[in-house]
Amino acid sequence: MKTIKLDLKKRSYNIIVGSNIMKFLGTHIAKLNIGRDAYIITNASIKNKYGKTLDKALKQSGFTTRFKLIPDTEESKSMGMASSVIEDIVCYDKKKRVFIIALGGGVIGDLAGFIASIYKRGTPYIQVPTTLLAQIDSGIGGKTAVDLIQGKNLIGAFYQPRLVFSDAGVLKTLGLKQLQSGLAEVIKYGIIKDPRLFVYLEKKYQAILSLKQPALGFIVRRCSLIKARIVQQDEREEKGIRTILNFGHTLGHAIEAAGDYKGYNHGEAIALGMLVASDISRNLRLINHEIFQRIENLIKAVGLPTRIQRVSLKNIIEAHYRDKKFIGAKNRFVLIKGIGKTKVVENIPLGIIKENLKKRF
Amino acid sequence: MKTIKLDLKKRSYNIIVGSNIMKFLGTHIAKLNIGRDAYIITNASIKNKYGKTLDKALKQSGFTTRFKLIPDTEESKSMGMASSVIEDIVCYDKKKRVFIIALGGGVIGDLAGFIASIYKRGTPYIQVPTTLLAQIDSGIGGKTAVDLIQGKNLIGAFYQPRLVFSDAGVLKTLGLKQLQSGLAEVIKYGIIKDPRLFVYLEKKYQAILSLKQPALGFIVRRCSLIKARIVQQDEREEKGIRTILNFGHTLGHAIEAAGDYKGYNHGEAIALGMLVASDISRNLRLINHEIFQRIENLIKAVGLPTRIQRVSLKNIIEAHYRDKKFIGAKNRFVLIKGIGKTKVVENIPLGIIKENLKKRF
Repeated sequence: MKTIKLDLKKRSYNIIVGSNIMKFLGTHIAKLNIGRDAYIITNASIKNKYGKTLDKALKQSGFTTRFKLIPDTEESKSMGMASSVIEDIVCYDKKKRVFIIALGGGVIGDLAGFIASIYKRGTPYIQVPTTLLAQIDSGIGGKTAVDLIQGKNLIGAFYQPRLVFSDAGVLKTLGLKQLQSGLAEVIKYGIIKDPRLFVYLEKKYQAILSLKQPALGFIVRRCSLIKARIVQQDEREEKGIRTILNFGHTLGHAIEAAGDYKGYNHGEAIALGMLVASDISRNLRLINHEIFQRIENLIKAVGLPTRIQRVSLKNIIEAHYRDKKFIGAKNRFVLIKGIGKTKVVENIPLGIIKENLKKRF
Repeated sequence: MKTIKLDLKKRSYNIIVGSNIMKFLGTHIAKLNIGRDAYIITNASIKNKYGKTLDKALKQSGFTTRFKLIPDTEESKSMGMASSVIEDIVCYDKKKRVFIIALGGGVIGDLAGFIASIYKRGTPYIQVPTTLLAQIDSGIGGKTAVDLIQGKNLIGAFYQPRLVFSDAGVLKTLGLKQLQSGLAEVIKYGIIKDPRLFVYLEKKYQAILSLKQPALGFIVRRCSLIKARIVQQDEREEKGIRTILNFGHTLGHAIEAAGDYKGYNHGEAIALGMLVASDISRNLRLINHEIFQRIENLIKAVGLPTRIQRVSLKNIIEAHYRDKKFIGAKNRFVLIKGIGKTKVVENIPLGIIKENLKKRF
């Protein structure tokens, strides 16, 4: 079990990473002094897998528990769902000592974090992420959100959890698609910040794809540390430091949106977005062809797409211009100068974007 | 025109108080560099009174404007209304440079502030309060909220505005009830923090009730300063300093809730709550009878109730136990040791509360 401290002064918290540690969750929460009544937001299939272990762990540490099941779809990330869950929390919160546990992937983490941020102007919550993506990315850093019809994550808050508790042991039940989706972000961390992680992935991708525990544990620890260090320096994405986490995301989001979130999942779209951003970096002579090739090879090796087949160029460009990362109608790309080195560039001409997008078709 | 600085480091902002200053709002916002497109949340009657002046002031400073009218009732403070307003903002926010103006009383300020806190994880907003209560209390300090069926203000955030712009000139159109409701909080500031303000009110209450501008301007400035100083020391109500603002509110909220918010308005209920809290303070020999009498006399002089007639003792006691100010099932009262001096006391026996409540019937 490894503890990573995310230092945000009064909002500091630990990220605990280990294998098969779910049974210790109660004792870790007990140290935080955040309440006695655990309100666990999750879905039916996760509750089936880990509900009993978690329930026992919490009760042994003297907590009461209430599980709230929400449907396992992106549609659960809505204001309506947030309201209805909060109405349920109020009924449970008779003794005014409730805290919230988000037990699940990104949808549950984003929704539960948002609920915690607005219930009674802020209620303590714990992230217990159960997907690779949530463990290394969305579960850390306090970005919470729900969607609107007009766009994803348009409503939300920066609101930090009191603990992130990542049991890499639960990843063994992930399907290949979910694993790959998380791996896109793992590759991203290597590209933007960690050449050694990148080399590790080049060597060990097969162990990861076969869900070998030491390899999974390693990447969760390594990526959690990178994410924590970045969030620590730029909690609210105001200093341009956290921005580098958006590598591959400017076009990645457009690729997701172009297919109405049914064409490509997040990891697939981010993989494609990273390829285009790398290609633009090569175009601007920020990296050489060899580096580009290593990135493309790794993405291909883990089974993520390198060609765009399910959405049209026109739809991507349109979605790109609606993206909330536009600042005052300028576009903004995170590019790379090498493995582990980024450069933020504004106002890349549409011609260059299109040209490099086209290569992916 | 007077500027009060509320110092919260990165979240600092000015409170500007003056008479007939609405026409200068544009130039003050222009200095803040918070966007170009003003989304003004208000209601029909306020827009009728000040819409043209505000629209002109903003356009002269180069802003675009969009007015959003919401019904003038507490029911507007809901998650449903927040969602529907945000969906409208998204349509207006094509160029990603929207900021929000709350033009109205407490309902509009609370709702608009909450919307600003969650739209895109935080969007700049300005408070332009148009009631006495909003100018001296709810418009300052960043407490935003919407209601649930189960209780008021159960959902919300601490989210500071970028400017509070209080035109005391608009108070001349207030009805007597609204003025008195605000005066309850003005009296509260005198009791908890400012003996000179209390004496001023004892002498000048008639000028205030006749809406004389110098008197109104004075109390808005004085109370804004007190509120700013308290918020500055305890932004998120964590240090027990901001707590003193709850003088009269523990039972006041219970009195409001006991009548399902139709028996007594906020100011009336707070006046009654302050009387009971003062009576308890007298009981515990924290103040003498003379001080109690001055408080009762002032409340009576401005036309606020000193007797409870519209709700039952039983309902007040029940509502009291549901109040969110209970901490771990303890009650907590702000009492006084004199005009301008408070003392927070926990776990006042129910017998003492009941006894002093009964005197008001």
